Amino acid sequence: MRIEAEGAMTGGAPNMIRPMPGNDRPRVVILGAGFGGLAAAVALKSIPVDITVIDRRNYHLFQPLLYQVATAGLSPAQVAMPIRRILSRQKNVTVLMQRVERIEKAMQVVHTAERSIPYDYLVVATGARHAYFGHEEWAESAPGLKTIGDATEIRARILSAFERAEVTEDDQRREALLTFVVVGGGPTGVEMAGAIAELARKVVVRDFRHINVASARVVLVEAGNRILPTMPACLSAKAQRQLEGLGVEVLSTAAVNHCDAGGVTLADGRRIGSTCVLWAAGVMASKAAKWLGAAADRAGRTVVDERLNVPGHDNIFVIGDTAAVKSEDGRPVPGTAPAAKQMGEHAAHAIRALIAGNPVEPFRYRHFGNLATIGRKAAVADFGRIRLSGFSAWLVWNLAHLWFLVGFHNRLVVFMDWGLAYLRYERSARLITDRHER
Amino acid sequence: MRIEAEGAMTGGAPNMIRPMPGNDRPRVVILGAGFGGLAAAVALKSIPVDITVIDRRNYHLFQPLLYQVATAGLSPAQVAMPIRRILSRQKNVTVLMQRVERIEKAMQVVHTAERSIPYDYLVVATGARHAYFGHEEWAESAPGLKTIGDATEIRARILSAFERAEVTEDDQRREALLTFVVVGGGPTGVEMAGAIAELARKVVVRDFRHINVASARVVLVEAGNRILPTMPACLSAKAQRQLEGLGVEVLSTAAVNHCDAGGVTLADGRRIGSTCVLWAAGVMASKAAKWLGAAADRAGRTVVDERLNVPGHDNIFVIGDTAAVKSEDGRPVPGTAPAAKQMGEHAAHAIRALIAGNPVEPFRYRHFGNLATIGRKAAVADFGRIRLSGFSAWLVWNLAHLWFLVGFHNRLVVFMDWGLAYLRYERSARLITDRHER
Repeated sequence: MRIEAEGAMTGGAPNMIRPMPGNDRPRVVILGAGFGGLAAAVALKSIPVDITVIDRRNYHLFQPLLYQVATAGLSPAQVAMPIRRILSRQKNVTVLMQRVERIEKAMQVVHTAERSIPYDYLVVATGARHAYFGHEEWAESAPGLKTIGDATEIRARILSAFERAEVTEDDQRREALLTFVVVGGGPTGVEMAGAIAELARKVVVRDFRHINVASARVVLVEAGNRILPTMPACLSAKAQRQLEGLGVEVLSTAAVNHCDAGGVTLADGRRIGSTCVLWAAGVMASKAAKWLGAAADRAGRTVVDERLNVPGHDNIFVIGDTAAVKSEDGRPVPGTAPAAKQMGEHAAHAIRALIAGNPVEPFRYRHFGNLATIGRKAAVADFGRIRLSGFSAWLVWNLAHLWFLVGFHNRLVVFMDWGLAYLRYERSARLITDRHER
Repeated sequence: MRIEAEGAMTGGAPNMIRPMPGNDRPRVVILGAGFGGLAAAVALKSIPVDITVIDRRNYHLFQPLLYQVATAGLSPAQVAMPIRRILSRQKNVTVLMQRVERIEKAMQVVHTAERSIPYDYLVVATGARHAYFGHEEWAESAPGLKTIGDATEIRARILSAFERAEVTEDDQRREALLTFVVVGGGPTGVEMAGAIAELARKVVVRDFRHINVASARVVLVEAGNRILPTMPACLSAKAQRQLEGLGVEVLSTAAVNHCDAGGVTLADGRRIGSTCVLWAAGVMASKAAKWLGAAADRAGRTVVDERLNVPGHDNIFVIGDTAAVKSEDGRPVPGTAPAAKQMGEHAAHAIRALIAGNPVEPFRYRHFGNLATIGRKAAVADFGRIRLSGFSAWLVWNLAHLWFLVGFHNRLVVFMDWGLAYLRYERSARLITDRHER
């Protein structure tokens, strides 16, 4: 490896490589071990570089299934894997659990609380969080779904609402407790609304004595004129019919004006009383642009060039939900796992090319399709020419997600849980854990 | 049922039964859905009574496997089941998630934050928490293991210690980070120490680059002259040898004098530097005695008569870890799941007898044996005449615990996790979740 490295370097871009004493391998620092960061690290497996992956958590999160943790279908450990374990066998990787504090571009150093890590190549893949469009005060009464903490908090709120409804003797309070409002008609909102409706009507329905949980209201509120706006209109309509079939009320062109512990108020003045409002509308990128002193768009995403570089720094790549990237047809690249993976692979190939002194290709986003699941047997899938809905789309969705779940163990356990849930309308993780019971 | 109830009651103990309008069935209130409370509820399944089970959590916890959650072997949802789900099909049971505030014996009413629940018969099974013998200030630096919150906190501390050791450049700090002290040589302490040693030496050993986790120190500190004091001396010795085989240092006759964030100081002045001290020494019963205005022993357990009644109240039963009970040979009944189950069944039979106007038998504890597991292939088991250690005991331990795990789903998933862990030295739940990431 050592010789290869030297070979690579003599032909390489020396201005970018300041060898450390006793180690002449280029240093690649990857911030964030989401889909993008991991893809970059794995794609550099056989390259003679020293990779440091920095994440403030010890686990990689399989975001697309997080809504199932929030609705008691899966356990956190089934959608999260230790980053160390995933990269355990890749000898050129070191994983550090640290929180990034700042990036010194001039010195090419990343500073964390306890360490300063120099880099020759930097890949920033620190993702995004949900946003409240300047109404951050809504966060407490309408949690969003981005982390395991969010998911277990939402799970506790949903299950506690049923528990409190069973206890209370106040009819109005009971009605508010049995009303669930999901704000945002994107894939996450659609998945959440469908899963909550099923939880109430199929799973916990036999478990209560004083309340009829099947009468629980689930309201999906979307500001735009249809749910799943990134999908063809016909699939949006199908998704809405499937949701309504599960008992979800879908309100389109219904913007939320106000949100508090008692419920939401819509732009047209309508008030929906609910003790459990969930936020699935809009995201804000991580602080990457601030760290890098780079330009950002309205969603806080770093503006990058066609090679995913911060303009003027061809050794700094920003990828995934943290980057504002346009595909060739000029449309923004979606904030999905496949897109992040493609960007991570691009960054790895670019670094390989830079080391070898070869030209770097521009990033080309390949769009494979859109998927959104709705319930136990329903989903919609858009693969351009091929459009599926209902059970067939649901099967495709399950297979796709199962396949991409990192780790054999998780795949197996999740598959079994889904199988049992499907056969027995069961949910395996119906735990209410509070701040002191993580 | 109605007629039976009336029949039962006319022959019953009328002074104890004040029928509610429109309902003449005796009201049984059970506080706590642990092994004792659940056993009482289930044993009353076919009896014409109205049962209310009150627990401040929504799940029943399988305590004997909790140490596996604390050591990343199992997920919380694999050792906890929703109480509602367990009792879903038992139509004479209502479950309320409420925190008990006080008990009004004169009026026969249990008061919670939101409700007042009258009872004809009361079963108090609210368990125990770990105790620090008047050193409650040690709780922050030496968490104990009683709830899911405790377990995930301990899991986070153990895994974070490895992560911090990988990051730090201070040798002394690294040594303290890689030293784990378990205080208390009972079954829980033995299980914890063994599991941590295996976690370090077998599971995460390949995942770190800068530290040698196999060099981690695991110290089991026991104040008495041998670990597992309730077991025969020969099995204590075998357990110690098996622990030492896993690399655990066992310190007997070593009382802890002081405990802080930096480690522990023993009675003989020895200081053990450790950032991860775990408490497995001693328990304190719940507030039941205070609620009932009854006498309590030094561990806070309510003193009950041979029928498990609070003296003078033959309709109030205190069972499980909350009760101080002697077996026929005069020895205290251990605070184990089988003992709690037997007491719960006794309470149910006693209530049945009281309703029928029959005499109530005194409680007889049947001791089946003691089990403690040590590691991947090691355990000790004492069944009186039959004493096992090593692999055979480990098999017995696994089968016994698997068998008693509530719920088919959990049994299956746990069995699979154990199988995979056994084959691949894997841990499925290596997540560091913090206060905001339950």
